Amino acid sequence: MKKVSIGIDIGGTNTAIGIVDQDGNVMVKDSIATPDHGDFKRYISDLSIAINSLVEKLKIINSEIEILGIGIGAPSGNYYSGAIEHAANLSFKGIVNIVKFLRTHFPDLGAIVLTNDANAAAVGEMIYGGAKGMKNFVMYTLGTGVGSGMVVNGDVVYGHDGFAGECGHTTLVPDGRPCGCGGLGHLEAYCSASGMKRTAFELLLKYNANDSLLADKSYKELDSKMIYDAAMKGDKIALEVFEKTGDWLGLGFSDTVHYLSPEAIFLFGGPTAAGDLIFKPTKASMEKYLLPMYKDKVKILPSELKPGDAAIVGASAMVWKELEK
Amino acid sequence: MKKVSIGIDIGGTNTAIGIVDQDGNVMVKDSIATPDHGDFKRYISDLSIAINSLVEKLKIINSEIEILGIGIGAPSGNYYSGAIEHAANLSFKGIVNIVKFLRTHFPDLGAIVLTNDANAAAVGEMIYGGAKGMKNFVMYTLGTGVGSGMVVNGDVVYGHDGFAGECGHTTLVPDGRPCGCGGLGHLEAYCSASGMKRTAFELLLKYNANDSLLADKSYKELDSKMIYDAAMKGDKIALEVFEKTGDWLGLGFSDTVHYLSPEAIFLFGGPTAAGDLIFKPTKASMEKYLLPMYKDKVKILPSELKPGDAAIVGASAMVWKELEK
Repeated sequence: MKKVSIGIDIGGTNTAIGIVDQDGNVMVKDSIATPDHGDFKRYISDLSIAINSLVEKLKIINSEIEILGIGIGAPSGNYYSGAIEHAANLSFKGIVNIVKFLRTHFPDLGAIVLTNDANAAAVGEMIYGGAKGMKNFVMYTLGTGVGSGMVVNGDVVYGHDGFAGECGHTTLVPDGRPCGCGGLGHLEAYCSASGMKRTAFELLLKYNANDSLLADKSYKELDSKMIYDAAMKGDKIALEVFEKTGDWLGLGFSDTVHYLSPEAIFLFGGPTAAGDLIFKPTKASMEKYLLPMYKDKVKILPSELKPGDAAIVGASAMVWKELEK
Repeated sequence: MKKVSIGIDIGGTNTAIGIVDQDGNVMVKDSIATPDHGDFKRYISDLSIAINSLVEKLKIINSEIEILGIGIGAPSGNYYSGAIEHAANLSFKGIVNIVKFLRTHFPDLGAIVLTNDANAAAVGEMIYGGAKGMKNFVMYTLGTGVGSGMVVNGDVVYGHDGFAGECGHTTLVPDGRPCGCGGLGHLEAYCSASGMKRTAFELLLKYNANDSLLADKSYKELDSKMIYDAAMKGDKIALEVFEKTGDWLGLGFSDTVHYLSPEAIFLFGGPTAAGDLIFKPTKASMEKYLLPMYKDKVKILPSELKPGDAAIVGASAMVWKELEK
């Protein structure tokens, strides 16, 4: 029997489902709409049907599979309670216990576990990726926001209430840029993809740089991919965006090291495709801010999870991690 | 038989030794000079003699004691290696393995363990103090510097290399006040006892406040106790020092919560004697900077360790913690 686990990634628009083998390969996948009707019971029923038909689909290809459990990554997903609690971008209001509800549909599975997507990504890195064998590391996910998942002594840090690890909302610059959350000067406001866009316009206006390749884009249309493309063509503004983003990220990472002294910090998400453009200034900045005792010890590494499947794969990894215990 | 553990606190000038019962009471204590001769073997020999004579002294009072182990708190003490590594303020250069050396003198003890003083204080709080039963909390020690010890899932966070938890050296204000370590804008540069003194002079010059009770003290003589006394007499500058210190500390604590979501943050050290003067603005500031999901959840509590004996008691607590495993 080939052991597999099911990974579910609940986003604001879609819910992706995949069945993943022990090496982190997605064997089959599917998705359903994350509904806006707010009826959680109906959603779970639809989700269960989708899971079952995916399992049937896999069994046609490979009848020798054993499903060990379901891992779920969801915004405001609480590992301890098994509930999605007051998620801002989902139609299910209040506290909805997804683990308990799914358990009624799948009573015989070894594990059904929930956490948020950044924690799931950290577990994915630990089970399938570059953090195999590491007991202390941190995962940062750069996208619309900045997410983080921390592993200490081999376990995810959930904190007292299940919601630890919002490092994207630590204060980088007191009274700095407004963050999407309402706070000021958060890491996320500088180092997310939209933070990079803000930095690009900050530099355009600072240098009044009409000759930049970025100068003919509207605020709405500019994205981090365009900044990358311009940087590759040697555009000074675009290059400075990466420099500054790295400076800020490195400052944030130096705090992370002073807290946790991890073996490595992993970076996941769109901007990491820029490679040295982002990794070099980040590393240089982090080293600059570290106490001597930490210098030249902490690796900054690209995530080894495949971008497209990372959310499903990370969620599925929660099952293997849970069954280790 | 009454079970006891030995706590050793190694400071730059003195090494304090105490024998502590399971309730955290120091039964007997003594101290020897921490030598400046740099001969580690000779120091360990002197220390062992002092330990043995303290044990003999206790046995005269109470013959029914069983010594379970020795816990050591020392600057740059590494829990994993058992060595003091490159301590800046001690005469022993390089890496000196104090656990191994002491073990040759005390081969039969259940545990000989080392860490730094802030981690030891955290364990002391967990074993004897206000953090009993807590699995996730953070300890901040305010003194000449700002130390920190973190407990996650019931264990101290040592990180990959044994040196995690230098939260006093996270950056509060980029390019801010120079810190004693050479960095800029660190929490310690604002919230330590000497940080408070710097704030006092910052405010004196800002308001050109010749009428302040603090205005007749030289830079060298002003200390945090004088600031407290002036605040109790209603001195506006002194009161604002506490307000501002609390603002900064609360900003730092909000980062701590975004990282670790602890049940409580404990404060230890001189400035905490000011009670509400420091706790109220700290709490208000922390709440202001927290994401909504963390608001009104995290307690800020005074340490329950007795100031004079805390270092010994914290070190001794490491033994009970170690033997729990």
